[in-house]
Amino acid sequence: MKLYNMELSGNCYKVRLLCALLGLTYESTPVDLLRGEHKTAAFLQLNPRGQLPVLDDEGTIIWDSSAILLYLARRYGGERWLPLDAKAMAEVMQWLSLSQNEILYGLARARAVKKLGRPWDIEQCQMLGKQGLTVLEQRLSGHFWLAGEQATIADIACYPYAALAPEGGVDLEPYPSVRAWLKRVADLPGYIAMPGIGEQACG
Amino acid sequence: MKLYNMELSGNCYKVRLLCALLGLTYESTPVDLLRGEHKTAAFLQLNPRGQLPVLDDEGTIIWDSSAILLYLARRYGGERWLPLDAKAMAEVMQWLSLSQNEILYGLARARAVKKLGRPWDIEQCQMLGKQGLTVLEQRLSGHFWLAGEQATIADIACYPYAALAPEGGVDLEPYPSVRAWLKRVADLPGYIAMPGIGEQACG
Repeated sequence: MKLYNMELSGNCYKVRLLCALLGLTYESTPVDLLRGEHKTAAFLQLNPRGQLPVLDDEGTIIWDSSAILLYLARRYGGERWLPLDAKAMAEVMQWLSLSQNEILYGLARARAVKKLGRPWDIEQCQMLGKQGLTVLEQRLSGHFWLAGEQATIADIACYPYAALAPEGGVDLEPYPSVRAWLKRVADLPGYIAMPGIGEQACG
Repeated sequence: MKLYNMELSGNCYKVRLLCALLGLTYESTPVDLLRGEHKTAAFLQLNPRGQLPVLDDEGTIIWDSSAILLYLARRYGGERWLPLDAKAMAEVMQWLSLSQNEILYGLARARAVKKLGRPWDIEQCQMLGKQGLTVLEQRLSGHFWLAGEQATIADIACYPYAALAPEGGVDLEPYPSVRAWLKRVADLPGYIAMPGIGEQACG
């Protein structure tokens, strides 16, 4: 299995984290977004969106972090990380959508403005990100995990950019249940961290 | 089954369309976004994000259009609209993600700027939307459907705001394979349209 990967990408980290939790090993192929390596013709053959991560599992190519999480969970995780019951699976999907909306266009973009100088309106991004955190807080004030009663790919999908929110100028102090959940994720057996996610973000 | 619904919402239309294709009937409960009915305390109890659509299936509440599509396909559609094989399901997920990213934050937002006066940068939205259409075009130039060899919820998720792109000032003329696919969707048995999707958008 090969992962087209960048260390500082929260979307790539989702995949690295699930692999670690599943005990899967892979070859990491670094792609340097800052040098435009994701826009080369060769890379666009793999992923027409020109984004990371991309997974190559013995010739099965999957792009998009949510799709890769779903693929790995379904292929290697039984129903542990993705239940197949209609209601339970749809509840996981709700949070995958939040991770692609409020969290990606809010928290991840605010971080990209701050760290990479991207041209988005940081106040709009931060506001959207806080809306996402509020939804997470509401769920997590009454539950340990986002979907169902154990960790699923819903948690893996939402975790990185929630934990990295302070790098986008969004303080996690008003979200105590989110902070407790970040700690629970970090306590999962096999958990690995990424740069920027540490004591300060999780504590 | 009850659908919290708004006629002019492309996200609600995704659900109406899949219900029509599956032959499912439901009670439609109109929620007027323009009058802020999605931000009342009662509605936020149903959906903490304060968005449409929301499905109530005998007390099972599902919010988020992608999650509702997945729920209905899984519960009422066998594997016809959502295959369970890891690779096939992940391929469907790739396009659900595109529908929540380039298509929603690009094409749907450009339409919301034009039709509802929302405060987003329309040029950024249109550019992102065109990136999404380019990815669709590339896939559809060699395949009839987005994932696998028959229509799935991937097509249902991407269809509405692709068909409505002209309402956001994005011309579909440069995307002949997308236009042919719009026609194929409109030819599915049981298909229903929505306001703004007609001969011009599909032709």
